[in-house]
Amino acid sequence: MNEPVQRVGTGTRAATRVRDGRLLRGVRSRQVVARRAADVASVEGLNGLSIGRLAADLGLSKSGVQTLFGTKERLQVAAVEFAQQAFVEAVVRPASAAEPGAARLRSLVEHWIAYAETPLFPGGCFWAANLADFDSRPGVVRDALAAHHRDWLGLLAGEFREAARAGETAPLNAELTAFQLDAVLTAANIALRMGDTDAPAKVRQVLTELLTPPA
Amino acid sequence: MNEPVQRVGTGTRAATRVRDGRLLRGVRSRQVVARRAADVASVEGLNGLSIGRLAADLGLSKSGVQTLFGTKERLQVAAVEFAQQAFVEAVVRPASAAEPGAARLRSLVEHWIAYAETPLFPGGCFWAANLADFDSRPGVVRDALAAHHRDWLGLLAGEFREAARAGETAPLNAELTAFQLDAVLTAANIALRMGDTDAPAKVRQVLTELLTPPA
Repeated sequence: MNEPVQRVGTGTRAATRVRDGRLLRGVRSRQVVARRAADVASVEGLNGLSIGRLAADLGLSKSGVQTLFGTKERLQVAAVEFAQQAFVEAVVRPASAAEPGAARLRSLVEHWIAYAETPLFPGGCFWAANLADFDSRPGVVRDALAAHHRDWLGLLAGEFREAARAGETAPLNAELTAFQLDAVLTAANIALRMGDTDAPAKVRQVLTELLTPPA
Repeated sequence: MNEPVQRVGTGTRAATRVRDGRLLRGVRSRQVVARRAADVASVEGLNGLSIGRLAADLGLSKSGVQTLFGTKERLQVAAVEFAQQAFVEAVVRPASAAEPGAARLRSLVEHWIAYAETPLFPGGCFWAANLADFDSRPGVVRDALAAHHRDWLGLLAGEFREAARAGETAPLNAELTAFQLDAVLTAANIALRMGDTDAPAKVRQVLTELLTPPA
């Protein structure tokens, strides 16, 4: 890593360009493979992933994908990270424009419903399928899934706490309420995919009940 | 099917015994294979089932298992039916001793917690893993899972309705409340398997909040 990144002189600049190009292609390829891995995992589960199959799907060489990710486990973690990024972009970031507390909770739920109705991944909710699958398999993949889930529950709890502080709801146990809302979102996602078109209305109704006005 | 089942005469009686024996062995074998299939599906998911692998696990011939179940799909449905039976025995039947309404809901939740804490299947909750897996795969397996889930939600809604009728809780939307309780049970199951030892306390607390005393 002591190698100078840029130096005056056409020859070196060209070498840097090549190196940068390779790096960029490497990053892009990682993203392409991780995206495809997240797609496959949303349908088949993270255990359905295989380096060979992904390479074939994408018209890449198996050794190329192996170089990018090394092991199946690292590929699974990359798929989890890709799905987390996509979830943050689709649900968390747009809701951050709303005021903290009740308004942001409502915005999170609306973006979450849109995300569940038009899934980012062909198999629907990446988390619903994989968290339940990996809960009894300790390891780095489960840790990555658990970290995402913890972040999400923490975010919801923070907004419930803020809603209570601002007097938008009666005092509540923020962690327990976040646990309940998340549970209902996950169940609604499954219900939606099983054909229950009332699922979004149920989620909205539950959030309204959880945010009871102070007496 | 016009064949007489029993007839006087030792020879025929012996033939009947053989036929009965085969039938019994067939039923027992089906149960043994279905139980093993439910075990495997609780860890690997219903898609992880294969007739060849089950036969090898149980020291049976592949053609024998094929004769019992025919297709992988019928084997998957048999695993679902086995898991449903086990769930009814562990949770629904013992709770039916309690008074309908609030008492039975509490008993269902307690038996459910015991079931989640000492899973009937090595991979934990058969339903949590497989419902999420199959929600985007229409077919007889999904139908079998959905039917079980519908029965369970219907049972919970009936008890909430009874609790409201008996004045044990304020008026409520029985279907929505059942949906919420089931969602929290499923989430608690996953949380428990991820190491959250507070999950049973959360479930009890949520049931207490759902059963608010009439004003």
